Amino acid sequence: MADKAQLQEAIKTQGEVVRKLKSEKASKEQVKVAKLLQLKAQLGGDEGKHVFVLKTAKGTRDYNPKQMAIREKVFNIIISCFKRHGAETIDSPVFELKETLTGKYGEDSKLIYDLKDQGGELLSLRYDLTVPFARYLAMNKITNIKRYHIAKVYRRDNPAMTRGRYREFYQCDFDIAGQYDAMIPDAECLKIVYEILNELDLGDFRIKVNDRRILDGMFAVCGVPDEKFRTICSTVDKLDKMAWEDVKKEMVNEKGLSEDVADRIGEYVSMQGGQDLAERLLQDPKLSQNKQACAGLTDMKLLFSYLELFQVTDKVVFDLSLARGLDYYTGVIYEQNGADEAGVSVGSVAGGGRYDGLVGMFDPKGRKVPCVGVSIGIERIFSIMEQKAEASSEKVRTTETQVLVASAQKNLLEERLKLTNALWNEGIKAEVLYKKNPKLLSQLQHCEETGIPLVAILGEQELKDGVVKLRNVVSREEVDVPRADLVDEIKKRTL
Amino acid sequence: MADKAQLQEAIKTQGEVVRKLKSEKASKEQVKVAKLLQLKAQLGGDEGKHVFVLKTAKGTRDYNPKQMAIREKVFNIIISCFKRHGAETIDSPVFELKETLTGKYGEDSKLIYDLKDQGGELLSLRYDLTVPFARYLAMNKITNIKRYHIAKVYRRDNPAMTRGRYREFYQCDFDIAGQYDAMIPDAECLKIVYEILNELDLGDFRIKVNDRRILDGMFAVCGVPDEKFRTICSTVDKLDKMAWEDVKKEMVNEKGLSEDVADRIGEYVSMQGGQDLAERLLQDPKLSQNKQACAGLTDMKLLFSYLELFQVTDKVVFDLSLARGLDYYTGVIYEQNGADEAGVSVGSVAGGGRYDGLVGMFDPKGRKVPCVGVSIGIERIFSIMEQKAEASSEKVRTTETQVLVASAQKNLLEERLKLTNALWNEGIKAEVLYKKNPKLLSQLQHCEETGIPLVAILGEQELKDGVVKLRNVVSREEVDVPRADLVDEIKKRTL
Repeated sequence: MADKAQLQEAIKTQGEVVRKLKSEKASKEQVKVAKLLQLKAQLGGDEGKHVFVLKTAKGTRDYNPKQMAIREKVFNIIISCFKRHGAETIDSPVFELKETLTGKYGEDSKLIYDLKDQGGELLSLRYDLTVPFARYLAMNKITNIKRYHIAKVYRRDNPAMTRGRYREFYQCDFDIAGQYDAMIPDAECLKIVYEILNELDLGDFRIKVNDRRILDGMFAVCGVPDEKFRTICSTVDKLDKMAWEDVKKEMVNEKGLSEDVADRIGEYVSMQGGQDLAERLLQDPKLSQNKQACAGLTDMKLLFSYLELFQVTDKVVFDLSLARGLDYYTGVIYEQNGADEAGVSVGSVAGGGRYDGLVGMFDPKGRKVPCVGVSIGIERIFSIMEQKAEASSEKVRTTETQVLVASAQKNLLEERLKLTNALWNEGIKAEVLYKKNPKLLSQLQHCEETGIPLVAILGEQELKDGVVKLRNVVSREEVDVPRADLVDEIKKRTL
Repeated sequence: MADKAQLQEAIKTQGEVVRKLKSEKASKEQVKVAKLLQLKAQLGGDEGKHVFVLKTAKGTRDYNPKQMAIREKVFNIIISCFKRHGAETIDSPVFELKETLTGKYGEDSKLIYDLKDQGGELLSLRYDLTVPFARYLAMNKITNIKRYHIAKVYRRDNPAMTRGRYREFYQCDFDIAGQYDAMIPDAECLKIVYEILNELDLGDFRIKVNDRRILDGMFAVCGVPDEKFRTICSTVDKLDKMAWEDVKKEMVNEKGLSEDVADRIGEYVSMQGGQDLAERLLQDPKLSQNKQACAGLTDMKLLFSYLELFQVTDKVVFDLSLARGLDYYTGVIYEQNGADEAGVSVGSVAGGGRYDGLVGMFDPKGRKVPCVGVSIGIERIFSIMEQKAEASSEKVRTTETQVLVASAQKNLLEERLKLTNALWNEGIKAEVLYKKNPKLLSQLQHCEETGIPLVAILGEQELKDGVVKLRNVVSREEVDVPRADLVDEIKKRTL
């Protein structure tokens, strides 16, 4: 574009020279020369050779109307679930003060987009919706709220767009902030993940649950030195992609654990179950000696008793191998893992947990606001839905138009516009082709291409009789409808 | 935050030192010293004195739940209008390649937000939705589409947030791209502005219409040198804020026009009217000699004949003083100006025009796609609506919850959760307080604060009788409803 812009500049300048010379009544010769220069500029000279790259930024994409229709469908399912659970919604700016994001994401901070320093504040694009939410709570001294927030977040990650990993992507967050009795809001978050994934109907899924306190207790009793908890945690986190042998290798060779410490961890992280497992581990001679682990396990027991009442235990598993990357989790953590009809993993599209310390990091007096939440990563869902749409025969409508106002004869543009206007005024979704005398065939084709179900056809005879010929695009039936009844008839047929 | 982060770093490091020493079985003395250092770090030392600024970026704001409720209402009005006119929707990334925005906005380019060069492409935040739309059309070789796009755009302007001018603000754009018969899509754009402003009910408004070709023709016949057209155009554009005398001064003193040239312009720009004015000017001895002016005036006549059919001429005025800033307009331009009930101007919330050259700037072969569109600037609308909401007595609901599941007695948490779950599964929007034994009063208060209309009260007796006491929060009436009928009863009462 730069080239193109310069090129246009060049043309403009030369153009002005020509005009100036003219207005100065310059000699024909001068003008001719200037004109030639202008022509050269137009041809672009060397500039012309540069090609402008017509693309969106790396890792981002446009949404075309079809994709938007699917997006709307997904959002409606998710939002109606959030509203069913009594959530309000908020919004925050796409960029925050750089310092607001500093020290929240551990080593992932390198993926944050910074804005150029053009004078004034240093800004960064939001990396998730959780930190802005915590900033919002602290800034407005809000101590309890149940809110959802659907917005795009930004990460300078290696995009894998075919698998739905982008640098600009949507997050749908639902969070419950406030001092409440243990595990009740946590259970509702899991219920919400369950409801949304069921309604989206993406195939079978499991929701793994664990607790940071159980992990830390487990590391302690296995003999992991305190300062290695986090790094070992992120190694454990790889168990969903790596075999235990390789995870163990990393623990021993890279993280410097002794063989037997690693093996002890290995025993625990292989455990899966439900309430029963929590109870068994509360009897575990080693874990039962660790205060943190006991607190976590007691809560886990309680959580599962609520999940029973919410009828979601068929898909929720207490899994000691679940660790999750982010630093700010302090209690329960969960992550959904799905598979498509063919049983192929579609990875995780939902996850979250409890972060009781984050808001306190923003509060000048360090006042804490306990929070638990879930984030739905819908880009993966979009790509799955898009593939489904591609596969299925019935095509996605991108407009809601009920009727096209058409004519078979010439010189009826004014009548078509008048009728269309009347329908708009009555709240009918109506279109009319922007041509003086379009062919009836092209008008019908427009309906078939865009899925408009009805055509209101005007002709001399209809105008004389005060009727409109209403045609069903699919069945091709036509009936004359009195102008007075047209609106009701259209409404009746397009419920 | 940086300070806070460093501080935490310091604490962490010291903590690790302490652990390390311990694990190394260091002397009690060493450990004590280290502990003291850790304590000092925790107290923060000098670090502690720094204060972290808890705010959003300059010129931006959060939307709280109340504001979001208003925003949703406004969007619904606008979107349903766009859909009534058969528009599809698209979306584009928040940032574009820097070069995509280069050379589109004239001097306003200095207001563009650039992203920091972190390696890779040079990016800028979108400045409007029109240039990304043109880029999208050229990139996908789309030659006709009717689409709307609602998204935030970014301008490093001087914010005036009380008057609804932000650095991050929404634009709602509706555009019609394609080669069509003259003035038909242009007329629909004006119809849409008319419909939306009527439905938003912000008080009286006028829509000024003009044409770039008429302006240029007018400048030519008044004796303005070609190279001064644009700069004189932007001076004329100030007529809605400045008196003619001052505008004339600028033309003569700053832009170097002669007195009589300026006076000739003055005669024209004072003219307002409708179809009649277009006809009169077509007879104007000077204008009628200018090819461009004639083309513009002929189209203006045609436009008003369509506006008659669309029944909007009561609010649309052909006004030769309307110029509009942006470079890319090539034909019809329009701008709405509104006043509140008190008749106080609320400035312009909608404007647009025809830009037949923009897409061609992106197409490698320079293929043109004629476009006409309108942009609704809804931040001003939001602030007006918010003031209205503040003034009015009835308060805005921020949730849609139909019923709160409550109890007057202790130890009924499980029953409350069970019933809430049943209601969720039936699609009822239900809430339950996250407390084991909340007071009935606090449960009722929650309903009154948030506007929940119904309470489903459980007690030992109700459980025995297999009923639920359904209470109307406003009237305080209570009736026992059999569990089996509860869902229908709630639906019936919350239609």
